[in-house]
Amino acid sequence: MIEAPEDTTDASETLQGSLADVVALLGKHRLVEQLVHKQDMPRHALVESLVHKQHLAELQKRLDALHPADVAFILESLPLEDRLLVWNLVKAERDGEILLEVSDAVRETLIADMEPAELVAATEQLDTDEIADLAPDLPEEVIEDVFQALSIEEREQLRAAMSYAEDSVGALMDFEMVTVREDVTLEVVLRYLRRMDELPDHTDQLFVTDRQEQLKGVLPIGRVLVSDPDALVSDVMGTAPARLHANDGAETAAQAFERYDLVSAPVVDERGKLVGRVTSSAVIDFIREASDADVLNLAGLREGEDIFASVWKSAKNRWTWLAINLVTAFVASRVIGLFEGSIEKLVALAALMPIVAGIGGNSGNQTITMIVRALALGRMQFANARALLAKELAISLLNGVVWGGIVGVFAGLLYGSVSLGLVMTAAMTLNLMVAATFGVMVPLLMSRFGRDPAVGSSVMITAITDSGGFFIFLGLATLFLL
Amino acid sequence: MIEAPEDTTDASETLQGSLADVVALLGKHRLVEQLVHKQDMPRHALVESLVHKQHLAELQKRLDALHPADVAFILESLPLEDRLLVWNLVKAERDGEILLEVSDAVRETLIADMEPAELVAATEQLDTDEIADLAPDLPEEVIEDVFQALSIEEREQLRAAMSYAEDSVGALMDFEMVTVREDVTLEVVLRYLRRMDELPDHTDQLFVTDRQEQLKGVLPIGRVLVSDPDALVSDVMGTAPARLHANDGAETAAQAFERYDLVSAPVVDERGKLVGRVTSSAVIDFIREASDADVLNLAGLREGEDIFASVWKSAKNRWTWLAINLVTAFVASRVIGLFEGSIEKLVALAALMPIVAGIGGNSGNQTITMIVRALALGRMQFANARALLAKELAISLLNGVVWGGIVGVFAGLLYGSVSLGLVMTAAMTLNLMVAATFGVMVPLLMSRFGRDPAVGSSVMITAITDSGGFFIFLGLATLFLL
Repeated sequence: MIEAPEDTTDASETLQGSLADVVALLGKHRLVEQLVHKQDMPRHALVESLVHKQHLAELQKRLDALHPADVAFILESLPLEDRLLVWNLVKAERDGEILLEVSDAVRETLIADMEPAELVAATEQLDTDEIADLAPDLPEEVIEDVFQALSIEEREQLRAAMSYAEDSVGALMDFEMVTVREDVTLEVVLRYLRRMDELPDHTDQLFVTDRQEQLKGVLPIGRVLVSDPDALVSDVMGTAPARLHANDGAETAAQAFERYDLVSAPVVDERGKLVGRVTSSAVIDFIREASDADVLNLAGLREGEDIFASVWKSAKNRWTWLAINLVTAFVASRVIGLFEGSIEKLVALAALMPIVAGIGGNSGNQTITMIVRALALGRMQFANARALLAKELAISLLNGVVWGGIVGVFAGLLYGSVSLGLVMTAAMTLNLMVAATFGVMVPLLMSRFGRDPAVGSSVMITAITDSGGFFIFLGLATLFLL
Repeated sequence: MIEAPEDTTDASETLQGSLADVVALLGKHRLVEQLVHKQDMPRHALVESLVHKQHLAELQKRLDALHPADVAFILESLPLEDRLLVWNLVKAERDGEILLEVSDAVRETLIADMEPAELVAATEQLDTDEIADLAPDLPEEVIEDVFQALSIEEREQLRAAMSYAEDSVGALMDFEMVTVREDVTLEVVLRYLRRMDELPDHTDQLFVTDRQEQLKGVLPIGRVLVSDPDALVSDVMGTAPARLHANDGAETAAQAFERYDLVSAPVVDERGKLVGRVTSSAVIDFIREASDADVLNLAGLREGEDIFASVWKSAKNRWTWLAINLVTAFVASRVIGLFEGSIEKLVALAALMPIVAGIGGNSGNQTITMIVRALALGRMQFANARALLAKELAISLLNGVVWGGIVGVFAGLLYGSVSLGLVMTAAMTLNLMVAATFGVMVPLLMSRFGRDPAVGSSVMITAITDSGGFFIFLGLATLFLL
C-alpha cells in the first residue's frame, strides 16, 4: 500500500471525516463544559478550563486547515448553537469566502451573529462580484461602509454587478479576465504573464481587445504555450465559441457551456465591449442551484431549508403551497358536493371517484413535464403545438382504453354492474383527454404570457384533473346509472 | 454600432437562427419536391431537380459550418423524416461527434438509419472514452469491428471505460491527461509541451507522476507560465484539491467540482496510480442529465422522450408509473369501500374526504424532499433523525391546527355540524402527522437498504397518505358521528 501525499484530499472520504472530527471535538468540549457547570469544584475548575481551551484550540487548528467550502459544509451540518461556536473559531479573514459558500438559509443565521464591523472586514478579502453576491443579505449600513472602502473602478464594478437580475449572465460574471492586444508577439504576452504572481483561476484563455476594449478574439493559454513565441497574437488567436451578454438569462450561459464544453466565456455589452467573463465554476453553481430550485418547487417548498431552522420558519416556507392546494381541494370537494344526491343512491361512486381523478393528475403531469422541457430547450415553436396535442390526445385515448378498460372490468366485477364498469372506463378516458389538452395548453399559455411554465403548472393541472375527474365521473354516472 | 467578428457565436441568438435557416431550406426543398411530384412536367423537371439540389447543397454548407452540438440540437428539433434527411447531409467524419451530442432517444433513431460500416467509420474519430459512451447503443457486430481497429493500449482503455457503472466517476473519465516527472525543470516541461500540436481541452493542470505512475501532485498551467523556468517541477507543483476514484459515484465528482471550483481532477486507482481525469465539461453534462432525470422521475417518466417519438413509444415510457399509481389508487378505493355504509348515512363524508387525503400528500412530499436533500448532501447521520422527526411532527401539528382548523370551521358551517368540523380538523391533523412520520422514515429506510431514496419515495408517501387519510377520516367519522 503506497501512502498518499499528506494533504491531498480524497474527495469521497475526507469531508465526512472532517465533519466527524469536528463533531467529536465539539462533543469533548461540551462534556468538559457540563462537568465544569455540574460539579462546581474549585480545585478542578482551572484544570478543566485548560482542557476545555485545548479542545477549542485543536478544533480551530482543524478548521484552519480546511477549504472554505468544507468549513461551509460543516457549518451547515451543525445545529445552531454548535454552528455559532464553530463560526466564532474561524479566522476573521476567512469569514468572507465562507459566507459565500454556505446556503442562503445558513448564511442568514451567521450574519445575524456578526457585528457590522466584522461584516465590513469580512468583505475586504472578496472580489467585487463576490461582494455583490453577499449584498442582498447584508444590512444597508454595512453595504455603505463597504462601498466607501472601494476604489472608483471597483465601485463601478460593484454597482454593475448588483444591477443584474438574479438569474442573468451578469449575476454569474466576474471581472478577473486577462486581456492582451492583437498586435503584440506571444513573447510579449509571455513576459506580461510572468510579471503576474499567478493567473486568475479558470484562465484557460486570454481575451484579445483593442483600445476601445472591443473583443477581437480569444487566445487559449495552451496555444500560447505551444506556438512560436515570435508569432503575433492576431495570427494565433481564434474567435470565441460563444459570446455572452450580461442581460441574457443565466440559462443561456449554462447551455453554451454545456454545448461548447467551455471553461470560460467572454461577456460583452451591446456594443461588443468586453465587460467581464463567466467561468465553468459559476455555471456549475448555477446549474446545481437551478436544479435544486426545480425539485423544491415541484414539492411546494419556497426555498431550501436549513434543517435546523425553527418549526415556525420551516412551516412558513411550506404554507403558500399548502394554502393553494387546500383551495383547489376545496373546489374539488364542492364539485363532489353537487352530486351528493347521486352518491347517496349509489355509494360505489364515492369509492371509485378518486381513481378517475388520480390517473388524470398523473397523466397530466407527465404531459406537462414533456412540454415544459420542450419549451426550455427551445423546441416548441418548430414542433407544431397542434401536432403535439394530437399526439398527447392519442396517447391518452390509448391509455384510457387500456388502463381505463382494466379498471372498468375490475369495478364492474366488484360491484356486479356492467354499466358501472362502462361509465368508469369512459370517465377515465375523458379525464385523460382533459389532462392531455390542458397539459399541452397550460405551459404554452403561461410561456406566451411571459411566465415561467415550470412554476405552478403542476398545481394547475392537478386542480383541473381533480375537479374535472370528479365532475366527469359523477356526471356520467348521474346521467346513465341513476 | 460596431460589427462583431464574422464567425463569433452570440450564444443567445445564433442557435435559434441556424435552426430557422435549416427549417427554411428544408421547406424550399420539400416545396420543390412537391412541385416535381405533382406537376410531372418533363420540361420543368430538369430545372427543378437542379434547384432542388441547390437547396440541399446550401443546407449542407450551412451544416458543415455548425458546431456538432448545434447540429445535434437541430436534429433533435426535427420530425423523423426531416431529421434523417439532414443526418444524411452531415459529413461522415462528423457522425461520431454528433452522435455523442444528441439525446439517447434521438440517437436511437439515427443509429437505426445507419449501416454497420458507417457506424464503425463514425467511431474512428472518437476517443476511447467517447466510444464507451456510444457503445450501449451500438449493435454488437459494430462494437467488435471497432475493437479490432484499436491499438492494444486503446483496447485496454475502452475495456476499462466500458466496465464502469453508468453513474460512476469512471463513466465521466477521459484519458487525455498530460503527465510530467517531478525531477525535471519547468524549462523541460515547456519544451515538452511545445512539441505537442495543441494541449488537450481542459488542460488547466499537468499531472506529476513517478515511474510507477503514482500521482505525486499537480502542476497548474498558470504556474508553469509565471514561475522561473529553472525551477524544478517538485518545487512548483501542488497537491490536487481533490483526487477521485473511478468507482466512486459521479455525484462525488460533481460535489468536488462544485466545492473546489475545479476545471479538471485526477482519477486514481486504489493504489494511487493515475488512471484518468475528469473535466468540468463532463461534470456539467452529468449534472444536467442528473437533474433532468430527477424531474422526469418525479413526473413518472422513465426517460426523456424524443418529442417526435411514436404514440406507442411514448405511451410505453409512461406506463410503469401509471400502472403503479392505479394499484395504489385501487387500494385507496378499497379503503373507502370499507366505509360505504357510513358514507351512505352521511354523504358529506364523500365530499370532504379528498381534502384530508390531499393535504397529507402535499405535506408528506414536502417532508420527503427535505429529507432526500439532507441525505444527498450527507447531513443525515449527524442531524439526529429523531430530532428531525420531532421537528416535522411539530410542523404538522401546527399545520393541522391552523389549516385543519380553518377547513374544519368551513366544513362545520357548510354542513351545519360542529362535530363534523371537529372530526375534519382531527383527521387532517392526524394525517399530517402520518405524512411527517413516513416522510422522514421512508427515505431513511430506503437509503439504509441501499436504494436511492429519490426514486419512488414520492409514490409511496402519496399512497400512504391517500389510503391513510381516507381511513382516518372515515374511521373517526364512523366512531364519532354515526
